[in-house]
Amino acid sequence: MKRRILLTGMGAAALLATARPGAAQADGLPSWNDGPVKRSILDFIARTTALGGPEFVPVPERIACFDNDGTLWTEQPIYVQIAFAADRVKAMAPQHPEWRTLEPFRSMLADDRAALAALGEKGFLEIIAATHTGLTTEEFAKAVADWLATARHPRFQRPYTELVYQPMLELLALLRAHQFKTFIVSGGGIEFMRPWTERVYGIPPEQVVGSSGVTRYELRPDGTPVLMKEPKVQFIDDGPGKAEGINQFIGRRPVFAFGNSDGDQQMLEWTAAGSGARFMGLVHHTDAVREYAYDRPSLVGQLHKAWDEARRRNWTIVDMKRDWKVIYPFEPR
Amino acid sequence: MKRRILLTGMGAAALLATARPGAAQADGLPSWNDGPVKRSILDFIARTTALGGPEFVPVPERIACFDNDGTLWTEQPIYVQIAFAADRVKAMAPQHPEWRTLEPFRSMLADDRAALAALGEKGFLEIIAATHTGLTTEEFAKAVADWLATARHPRFQRPYTELVYQPMLELLALLRAHQFKTFIVSGGGIEFMRPWTERVYGIPPEQVVGSSGVTRYELRPDGTPVLMKEPKVQFIDDGPGKAEGINQFIGRRPVFAFGNSDGDQQMLEWTAAGSGARFMGLVHHTDAVREYAYDRPSLVGQLHKAWDEARRRNWTIVDMKRDWKVIYPFEPR
Repeated sequence: MKRRILLTGMGAAALLATARPGAAQADGLPSWNDGPVKRSILDFIARTTALGGPEFVPVPERIACFDNDGTLWTEQPIYVQIAFAADRVKAMAPQHPEWRTLEPFRSMLADDRAALAALGEKGFLEIIAATHTGLTTEEFAKAVADWLATARHPRFQRPYTELVYQPMLELLALLRAHQFKTFIVSGGGIEFMRPWTERVYGIPPEQVVGSSGVTRYELRPDGTPVLMKEPKVQFIDDGPGKAEGINQFIGRRPVFAFGNSDGDQQMLEWTAAGSGARFMGLVHHTDAVREYAYDRPSLVGQLHKAWDEARRRNWTIVDMKRDWKVIYPFEPR
Repeated sequence: MKRRILLTGMGAAALLATARPGAAQADGLPSWNDGPVKRSILDFIARTTALGGPEFVPVPERIACFDNDGTLWTEQPIYVQIAFAADRVKAMAPQHPEWRTLEPFRSMLADDRAALAALGEKGFLEIIAATHTGLTTEEFAKAVADWLATARHPRFQRPYTELVYQPMLELLALLRAHQFKTFIVSGGGIEFMRPWTERVYGIPPEQVVGSSGVTRYELRPDGTPVLMKEPKVQFIDDGPGKAEGINQFIGRRPVFAFGNSDGDQQMLEWTAAGSGARFMGLVHHTDAVREYAYDRPSLVGQLHKAWDEARRRNWTIVDMKRDWKVIYPFEPR
């Protein structure tokens, strides 16, 4: 009985994971090549979940945070949310003749990807204000879902939600099977991610932290309440904002964090600064054939300061080309 | 085996709850008197968790939100957070001689409870800015924990964390045993609640939504990152802000919500406006002997507009005196 309750406490996922046969599934990370990176992950999970071990982490403290763009899915050639915004700009353009000459809208209408990749925070926020506001939260969620159902990545010609990293899907599932609570902590829009993260990553909306705009509660004439999306920034969850966002939304310091760019540096520092066992990981995009290769002087996903710190402090750096057997779930295996 | 997996999926709490014998525990709400209110709760849980039933709610959608002050613990004669702030003002007063004549600090130093209960948002924010900022989030969490360990409620002479409502503790546990995820959605400070909600209510920090100030990420000279609490409002989670906060932090509409004042009206409206089975509840403070009696013209916890709407729309109204067999966990039973 005791054992049965223990098993029950572990959750269905763990039970099913351990019950499933097959050598390839044995370690939970079949798409990771053997090597120091894969071993550092498995070792961390083993050490922190060994009951009675010196580095045991109680279940409530098992908080794992993942960046999204470039860490869980492909962020090249432009952030997916920018591609979404560009399509909205095109759809809304007939009502905005001034956009034909007004930046950054002109670049969007002209499919000038280099210009879009180089959008600073100001340009990005202008586009978000123009395309992500003036509608209700529910209308916006529907717009995101509708777009994802038909939009295709320019190179892979597949829905963006298929361009997620199979090794990371396995890592998320493995962590959850060991009772880690998995969170997204992204600079991207929180309402752009929530409509699909549960289906694609198994991460429910309440475990998605991201940038957000102000919403305004409003009663429609028939008494129905809606939340209107306003053209005003509520919170930017990027760089130092990721540590601040983790504190505000989760209220607990992660023990495990994975990112891929300078925007993740402070999240990793914040994670590292806690006591006890810690895991800090960076995805290094090294595979121009299967995905993309980029790091230091990159318009999207620059990995410069965070790279230096990761090297200096011995954080785990994934070399996609070397460490990932498979990149995408649709690749033949 | 199938049955065993199903049981496993239900979680340890449900298994233990059903396994525990004893008639008093049978319905999970032993401190609630029988009557329409208790029946409305049990009925809602039964309908929404009956597999295959017409009102079945899938587990991920089982989101239950509770106000804190006056709904889960006593908010009279002044909000607990104001009592905390008042003690901090007293401790800091030697460094601030100007407070002896400056409102609202003068009232705090003079223990003028009527004045404190009447503090508007402006006065409240001034006190928060003076007493809740200029330190790190970790220092603040420690200040809260230290204070709660020694502070006593002026009437009951007990730690504030003992002045929680036993019937609500049972309701939280019953909902969780049926795989509802329980959240706090409070106008109070998110960082004032998180240090103790897990221990007292079984609600982890990441399921606490509340008002918050801006924090600023900072590297100490030795390289240690800290989050400094700044005297700037980030978000006010009250009134319409509760619906906005639910959207921002949870990203999913609750199916169950409980409040006690006008500050909860929009949270209840937002909950009610979803499709399918819904539960909206209000605690009505009717017991001056065992707790407090107050509603319409109240300085703390005014229940006026929300009361009218609840009556009109047939939401569940708890009459503390009539519906609660026991108010506090420490009462003899």
